[in-house]
Formats: sequence, C-alpha cells, structure tokens
Amino acid sequence: MKTLVIVAHPDYEESTTQRFFRNSLLEFKDITWEQLDTDFEVEHERELLTDVDRVVLQFPLYWYSAPALMKSYLDEVFTYSYALGSKNSMRGKQLAIVVTTGDPEHDFQAGAREHFTMSELLRPFEAMAAKMGMEYMTPFIVYQFAYKTEIEQELLLIDYQRYITGDNNDSFKGKEAWYDQRLYTKIEKTADDDRKLSLDGIRQVLRTNMDTLDELDWALRMMKNDDGEE
Amino acid sequence: MKTLVIVAHPDYEESTTQRFFRNSLLEFKDITWEQLDTDFEVEHERELLTDVDRVVLQFPLYWYSAPALMKSYLDEVFTYSYALGSKNSMRGKQLAIVVTTGDPEHDFQAGAREHFTMSELLRPFEAMAAKMGMEYMTPFIVYQFAYKTEIEQELLLIDYQRYITGDNNDSFKGKEAWYDQRLYTKIEKTADDDRKLSLDGIRQVLRTNMDTLDELDWALRMMKNDDGEE
Repeated sequence: MKTLVIVAHPDYEESTTQRFFRNSLLEFKDITWEQLDTDFEVEHERELLTDVDRVVLQFPLYWYSAPALMKSYLDEVFTYSYALGSKNSMRGKQLAIVVTTGDPEHDFQAGAREHFTMSELLRPFEAMAAKMGMEYMTPFIVYQFAYKTEIEQELLLIDYQRYITGDNNDSFKGKEAWYDQRLYTKIEKTADDDRKLSLDGIRQVLRTNMDTLDELDWALRMMKNDDGEE
Repeated sequence: MKTLVIVAHPDYEESTTQRFFRNSLLEFKDITWEQLDTDFEVEHERELLTDVDRVVLQFPLYWYSAPALMKSYLDEVFTYSYALGSKNSMRGKQLAIVVTTGDPEHDFQAGAREHFTMSELLRPFEAMAAKMGMEYMTPFIVYQFAYKTEIEQELLLIDYQRYITGDNNDSFKGKEAWYDQRLYTKIEKTADDDRKLSLDGIRQVLRTNMDTLDELDWALRMMKNDDGEE
C-alpha cells in the first residue's frame, strides 16, 4: 500500500513532535513524507498523489482546524476539476488525519474547556472525504506529546506507525500480525547473526502466543455454539 | 454599535454576491468593510478591531470551512498573546459569521448530499468564540444567491443588513422596531418635502400596526392569565 503523508506545520523546524514522527517512518519504503512549504506547486503535489492508496493530512490544531498552509493546499490542489467532476481523482483512496494539540484529551467534550469533541471539530474533513468519494479513517489525535514520558512517547510512536502503515485493524490479533510482519522484515535485513537469532527467538514467542490465542478463541466459539444449541 | 466586516473572498472582483452585500452596507456609518488581501498587515488589522463591538467574518464556504486567506487572518491576527492570555483583546465582543455557498440548504443535513448541518461544520468558529470569550451569533448563511430571483435577493439583502446592524432580535417586534428606526433616519435625511411626507405616511402606518399588535399581545396575555387562575 502506497501512502503519502502531507505535513503542514508553520514552524516545522521547531517541532520535535513532527521530527519524531518523521524519523519513525524512515524505514518504510512505501511512505512518502511531503512537508509543505508556502511555495508548494500544485502540479507537483498532484503528481505525488498519483497511485497513492492512503493520503494522510498531518498538522497541529490551529483554532480548531488546520493551519492556513494546509488549507491553501486543500483549496488549491483539490479543485473541482481535479477532485470532483468527471476526473474525481481521489475517489477510492483513504483519507487519514493526524492532529497534534497541546491541550489534554478530556478538554474536548461537552461541558469541558474546549466544548466539542475532535470528531465534531473535524467534521469539515469528514465531509470533504465523503464529497471526494474517499474513505475517512478514524483520525489519529496526539494530545500533549511534549508532556509524555519517554516510554509513553515510544508507545505512541508505535501506534502512529501502525496508523500510517497498517490495515486499520485495531484488534489485538491485528496488532500481533503487524508486529510479526515487522519482526520478519527486521530479521531479513539484519546482517549480525547473533541479533538475527535473538530476533527470531522473539518472533517464535510471539507466534506461540498467537497460536495459543487462536486455540482459546476456537474453544470459546465452540462453547458459545454449544450454549446456542441448548 | 461599531461593526467590522472582514471579507475573505479569493476572487472578490468576480463575486457579484459580495459586491451586493458591500453596497447594501454603504449607508451605515458605524460599519467598516475590510476586504482582506494576501498581504494584510497584522498591526493594521488589530487597529481596526479596537473599539469594535461586533466582528463579522464573511467568506464563501471552501471545503466546508473558511478559505485559506481567512484562516491566515485568524492564525496570524488572533495569536495567543493578543486574543488569549492576559490581554484577551476580543473578550466581550460579538462574533458573527456570514457564509455563502453554491449548494442548496436542504443538502446540509444527515442523509443528504453534504451529510452535516452548517451548525456542525462551523463548530471550529463556535469553539474559537468561546475560547476568546466572545458571544457567538447565529451564523447568517446564504445559499445559492445567484439562483434567487431579484425580489428574493432584495429581501435577503434586508435580512443581511439587519443581521449586520441589528440587535440580533429576530422577533417580529424586533423587525418592526428596526424598520421604524431606519425610516426615521431616512426621513431626517430627505431634502424633498413630498418624499418626506410620503415616508412619514409609511411610518405612521407601521406605527399604528405596532400599536395594534401591542394591544393584541396585551389582550392575549390577559386571557392566558385568566386561564391560569381558573
């Protein structure tokens, strides 16, 4: 699956969060990281969009919406003749939104400081996806990245990688399959034999776990079926 | 009451709707019409906002939100240090939104073509007003202006004038008081004695109507009170 991550951050150089995200994607070949600048070229942007399966709009929340730079991109690249009408260039692709905010998650609800949920505030993007015939993915919201501990940040990066690269299967089984695939790729690439062996060990443990879970799942379903027949 | 109308239209010269709106406000002295250009100056914009009671953001709907130019204005003028924090320059002012769209009103609802209501799509502006301590006025939405008949357009312009200049009292009584005030101003300004007389005649009819309605309203309330006492 080919993915294009379009990043609009008015102060990108200063943003440790965005650099964290970028570095976490470097290992994936099918991902293009496009950092927008005020002088972006519409034709170039459209070239990048060709043959892409998933489009990620990534930005910090500015006045409960995208920064002006991202809005310029949407207004100028997704014109009627390009994105709608007979061309309808974005139809069938996925639209993913990654939003960072310095405010805490519990502020975004009725009666709280920000009054509205993120789902409500991002309605314009949901409506846009529907209009262009795109599949709207559940947005990935990062609250107060800077306040997180190092371990919390690492865990969040793994979730971010899965969001950008994954098949959008958020079940436990989906996560395991994703880790298994990534371990396999890592083992293939590793030159150091000792490291290869230890990674392979980890993968075996994971696979055994997966098999055990499969058996439990099967047993559980059998029990349910028996109940149903009584 | 001092009002500032901030207009962001990427193609202002071509927009008959915006010119219609502008012309309808020329007679009002307390209204400043500020047509944004890409090279607007933050300090100048902030000067215009000083001592203003009502701020109107007026724009065509682009991807279910404001065009990039309006977003630039919001991002750059309403910074934390200016609009929030200890300065909190916008606190107590009213925020009004005037949106034009080429799509019909019935498309903006669940299950219809645009999926969401205008109230939902404009949540980011509502949240922004709350954050800055502004009073959020019910937005004024203009659907398919170009498709309206001349008479429909004229009536809409009167509603628009009332929205921009009025006290936000949308009752029938509020409308009458507003017309009475405007007729009074017109009569004062008219040099032609015949025209003065005819305008005064219209005003007398309106006032008689207002009195009759007042009496009916009073009688109705008495009847309700009697019912309550039975």
